[in-house]
Amino acid sequence: MPSPFSWTLRIYWEDTDAGGIVFYANYLKFFERARTEWLRSLGIEQQALRAQSGGMFIVTQTEVRHLLPCRLDDEIVVTAGLLESGRASMTIQQKAFLKTPGQPQLIAEASIRIGWVNATSLKPARLPTSILESLEKRS
Amino acid sequence: MPSPFSWTLRIYWEDTDAGGIVFYANYLKFFERARTEWLRSLGIEQQALRAQSGGMFIVTQTEVRHLLPCRLDDEIVVTAGLLESGRASMTIQQKAFLKTPGQPQLIAEASIRIGWVNATSLKPARLPTSILESLEKRS
Amino acid sequence: MPSPFSWTLRIYWEDTDAGGIVFYANYLKFFERARTEWLRSLGIEQQALRAQSGGMFIVTQTEVRHLLPCRLDDEIVVTAGLLESGRASMTIQQKAFLKTPGQPQLIAEASIRIGWVNATSLKPARLPTSILESLEKRS
Amino acid sequence: MPSPFSWTLRIYWEDTDAGGIVFYANYLKFFERARTEWLRSLGIEQQALRAQSGGMFIVTQTEVRHLLPCRLDDEIVVTAGLLESGRASMTIQQKAFLKTPGQPQLIAEASIRIGWVNATSLKPARLPTSILESLEKRS
Repeated sequence: MPSPFSWTLRIYWEDTDAGGIVFYANYLKFFERARTEWLRSLGIEQQALRAQSGGMFIVTQTEVRHLLPCRLDDEIVVTAGLLESGRASMTIQQKAFLKTPGQPQLIAEASIRIGWVNATSLKPARLPTSILESLEKRS
Repeated sequence: MPSPFSWTLRIYWEDTDAGGIVFYANYLKFFERARTEWLRSLGIEQQALRAQSGGMFIVTQTEVRHLLPCRLDDEIVVTAGLLESGRASMTIQQKAFLKTPGQPQLIAEASIRIGWVNATSLKPARLPTSILESLEKRS
Repeated sequence: MPSPFSWTLRIYWEDTDAGGIVFYANYLKFFERARTEWLRSLGIEQQALRAQSGGMFIVTQTEVRHLLPCRLDDEIVVTAGLLESGRASMTIQQKAFLKTPGQPQLIAEASIRIGWVNATSLKPARLPTSILESLEKRS
Repeated sequence: MPSPFSWTLRIYWEDTDAGGIVFYANYLKFFERARTEWLRSLGIEQQALRAQSGGMFIVTQTEVRHLLPCRLDDEIVVTAGLLESGRASMTIQQKAFLKTPGQPQLIAEASIRIGWVNATSLKPARLPTSILESLEKRS
């Protein structure tokens, strides 16, 4: 099994809340940054894709479990990998790990379901074949 | 069955993304605003509670389903109600509805699991009895 | 001199940072919510206006001074009033006050310059006459 | 004159709004990420500094001019450099450039005034000498 795509990012003030830790909703942003870079690594640029195809991704379901808090200045590694894909949607599995001097620690994990819609009508549409092929070839 | 607590809010530019609709991660903020106001309606002020008890809520799990998009200037109603509560955590059920001239339309629904931690150590702790009593009495 | 338009809002977890106070960038959101509601009170709905006119507002310059911090659960009042308007832009003066048992305390003040652009090309355009008339009549 | 510190970042969905471009308030986040990395490059880690000194930075004034819009998937370079520093505050000058196949284009520029406060009382305090020395030596 190949190791999943991973993307490193840093925690800034904007990501934290008055609890002194990262605000939980912001993990959805971290997961999305990693998904976006994973897609980019497969040759899929969303802005260009929309201009060409008239379609765009839309998130239809998210499930996130938070295991450990993280803080300002922490560095985290976020993974992304295809769990399953159908004609009009796909599910991505993602994890976030805190970098430490020792082993990385799992801080959150998520399952994100994504559909493909016409960018004007927002009606569901079939995923472009080119995307499915890119995903299946390399993930 | 009593009708659940509900909180109305408006969609601003800050809530939207380049898809022309509300950015999905922001629904977690909307759900939290409604939860906070629901707790306030039960006499629970989180900042004061932390000063008194040394503890705070922490979100440990979120599940959100997105059914319909909403847009700038839309007005939405968000509900909150207790699904279950234990000694150290509780699960809140929430829905978001788009206000329309006719019937409100369900746009998203969520289940949010919340724990109680010591605000300094972030270690799990028992929910203060006063919170459990407030929740059980009125929800 | 008429008292300026004012809009009350509450501080939630999403607004704070690990300093225990509201993250300064979020005041721009508070100022915008108040501007949006001020425009709405003058009959200007931005989403509808864009559909009709093909144009939209764009912020071109912001100046914000932060005088006092505010915290979770605080309630603040944000004002908005027209400072000056030209053919293609206008400047809005705004203040944020903390509600207290005594006199409200000034916590931040801002000057926000806004232009009008074609929503497709993003090129500057003349403010629709209807907007200028609404602003001058009532502000 | 040495070239200023620069930090590259990518525009994601979270950064955009329904105008199809980056939401202006988010440039304050981009500027802060670059300032944080600039400070880190000078040996200043804010979380560690707070633990040691009991103090933290607080933004007291921001001025931002927006010259050109940018969009999803754009890559931008943000600079940071010391404009002036006193005993209790400093002003940082920052610019954001859009990466293009040709010359980078200036999209926004800012002047950010920052104070140093006791992290508990939030009262202004003198900047630690170690910070002033790091800033003056290398900027």
